[in-house]
Amino acid sequence: MNNLNLSTLKKLEIILEGEHQAFATDLLERAGVTGYTIVNHLSGKGSHGFHEGHVMFNEDSVLIMIITAVSEELVQPILEGFAPFFNEHTGVIFVSDIQVNRLVKFQG
Amino acid sequence: MNNLNLSTLKKLEIILEGEHQAFATDLLERAGVTGYTIVNHLSGKGSHGFHEGHVMFNEDSVLIMIITAVSEELVQPILEGFAPFFNEHTGVIFVSDIQVNRLVKFQG
Amino acid sequence: MNNLNLSTLKKLEIILEGEHQAFATDLLERAGVTGYTIVNHLSGKGSHGFHEGHVMFNEDSVLIMIITAVSEELVQPILEGFAPFFNEHTGVIFVSDIQVNRLVKFQG
Repeated sequence: MNNLNLSTLKKLEIILEGEHQAFATDLLERAGVTGYTIVNHLSGKGSHGFHEGHVMFNEDSVLIMIITAVSEELVQPILEGFAPFFNEHTGVIFVSDIQVNRLVKFQG
Repeated sequence: MNNLNLSTLKKLEIILEGEHQAFATDLLERAGVTGYTIVNHLSGKGSHGFHEGHVMFNEDSVLIMIITAVSEELVQPILEGFAPFFNEHTGVIFVSDIQVNRLVKFQG
Repeated sequence: MNNLNLSTLKKLEIILEGEHQAFATDLLERAGVTGYTIVNHLSGKGSHGFHEGHVMFNEDSVLIMIITAVSEELVQPILEGFAPFFNEHTGVIFVSDIQVNRLVKFQG
């Protein structure tokens, strides 16, 4: 057992309104994500209206950021799962490359 | 309209003292940034004194982190805009590659 | 002196239970890390039991995330320093590539 082997994964940072936390974590868990971390009480300024085609600023909306790390093959299903939600609600998903010091915590 | 197309952008994570939040978001907005998220109430230990040439530790300074995603051509103007500020104040800007699930929210 | 030169570093995001903050920052400082930022009051769901070989969920554990940027040669010693800890405790280290707008703050 070698903890020093880094595993290459995809980091997802999902920013959305806090009232939708359970929706998001349920979706992640159904996709096979077993671990995530949530940063609470973010503030932000964003542009909503992707669905309606205009920009609506929401100052000081109560946002959370859900951070997780998944294997690459989980990224597309998770994005597809969130797509209808983000057509209707404020938020964004950042995807980036990371290495993690142990895989067990985030296996999909 | 396909939300699943990921756009490659640059993520900026700007860590600075909370009292300078308005300066930073004004600078971002003038640069064309329309959305950002702020993590409040960070604590930190850093080395100030880039300007004066010595290291001064500030335990428990009240920091914020402003997270945004911009197109690559905005990175340099934003860094140039912040350069005089960071010659005088504690903080740092992290720049990294990310993909975002929709572009509209962060168009510069 | 050109603040606009970006330095390529490794970003470490260390997520662990808040009660172990001093252990972690002491380890980082002994490794030569002079600056870091801490996001407090995270919540999370993870899988512990890497050591014992089974999964134990901990809802709402009080987590922190320590963010720092180090030169590449510091990554392996820091991971080695944390390895025994993460065999016993919940948490993870994310490693990613970043560029930083000034090097002085994070020199190892």
